[in-house]
Amino acid sequence: MNTTVVLLSGGMDSATLLYHLADAGHAIKTISFDYGQRHVKELTAAERISRLKGVEHMAADLRAINSLLGENSLSGRSVEIPEGHYEEEMMKLTVVPNRNMIMLSLAIAWAIQLEYDAVAYAAHSGDHAVYPDCRPEFAGAMDRAAALCDWRPIQLLRPFVDMDKGDIARRGDELGVPFDLTWTCYKGGALHCGKCGACRERIDAFAKHGLADPTRYE
Amino acid sequence: MNTTVVLLSGGMDSATLLYHLADAGHAIKTISFDYGQRHVKELTAAERISRLKGVEHMAADLRAINSLLGENSLSGRSVEIPEGHYEEEMMKLTVVPNRNMIMLSLAIAWAIQLEYDAVAYAAHSGDHAVYPDCRPEFAGAMDRAAALCDWRPIQLLRPFVDMDKGDIARRGDELGVPFDLTWTCYKGGALHCGKCGACRERIDAFAKHGLADPTRYE
Repeated sequence: MNTTVVLLSGGMDSATLLYHLADAGHAIKTISFDYGQRHVKELTAAERISRLKGVEHMAADLRAINSLLGENSLSGRSVEIPEGHYEEEMMKLTVVPNRNMIMLSLAIAWAIQLEYDAVAYAAHSGDHAVYPDCRPEFAGAMDRAAALCDWRPIQLLRPFVDMDKGDIARRGDELGVPFDLTWTCYKGGALHCGKCGACRERIDAFAKHGLADPTRYE
Repeated sequence: MNTTVVLLSGGMDSATLLYHLADAGHAIKTISFDYGQRHVKELTAAERISRLKGVEHMAADLRAINSLLGENSLSGRSVEIPEGHYEEEMMKLTVVPNRNMIMLSLAIAWAIQLEYDAVAYAAHSGDHAVYPDCRPEFAGAMDRAAALCDWRPIQLLRPFVDMDKGDIARRGDELGVPFDLTWTCYKGGALHCGKCGACRERIDAFAKHGLADPTRYE
């Protein structure tokens, strides 16, 4: 049986990843990272979705190392969240430096400890241009590092890498993912704001294939 | 000018690395990791050596994620520290899973935030056989990942990779490294125990080129 640690942010892509791999028969544990992000509601979402799916969830607390990560609009407090569709400059503000390498390194450590075979993450085609650590070449280097970091290779899985967010939403819809429990908004208010770049992408994802959007927006 | 984050454990190899790169004209900041190791005296050593050298030191607190790293004789409490020279099975007990990827990923994040060019670590030839993440192939994969994780490549430096601990001790001696301030012993008592694998390697390192060993052993 495949044994896989799933990086679960609590958003719609990683929730779909969890359901997709469970459907494929993987034994799964999920991991989330608390790096002091404003949208801490993601973490609550990750925990609820894991419980609903009956899998163990690990919340890795990185708040003590926030000073390494610097000022940015996710972990910092002095930068405003940009509104509107993601344009390159706006999106750069939401980058936590080296986030993917950090999250993968810790998920891999947990997989080694659990004697699990793989770590899965929900990289998709829409990320490539804006986040340097979403580029396929970066993913390839991490594949190789993960295969060598222990005597037993750890495989990195990213089954959605050639799909966009709209295609992921359709796959999640097929699998019965509880999208109403997922959280996307970077502002972390009572409801999704519907205006920030992340919310706009969420709205567009449901719209692409004409799916009903269960999200309550402000 | 070269701008470099140095992984400083507080042991003799990384202290020599700091002095070696400072001697080569690098502007340096140092980083250490507290993952709940018994030999927390390393961290105090790292801080004192950094202060003596006049460089900023960052202590990254990873204790909150200890449960990811599992039971081992460095971070765990229920495993005894083996005595005697490092034999393979004994040394494996001292492995924190995926430690090098975790430490490099966080040092790289800090370098990105600082707009520094490089991260240096004191990998040496004696580590290769026992620690999978000290193999040159692993280092090569991490080089590539570090070059791609941000739009501006981060270089990974390991100038001691073809030297053994005895050669590093000689280089440190030339540079006036305060070896009496460095800490090696895994037991973390008042003095170095002189018996654990790490202490044995330390003793052998000074002996190789007939250097005076300033360490006070139990």
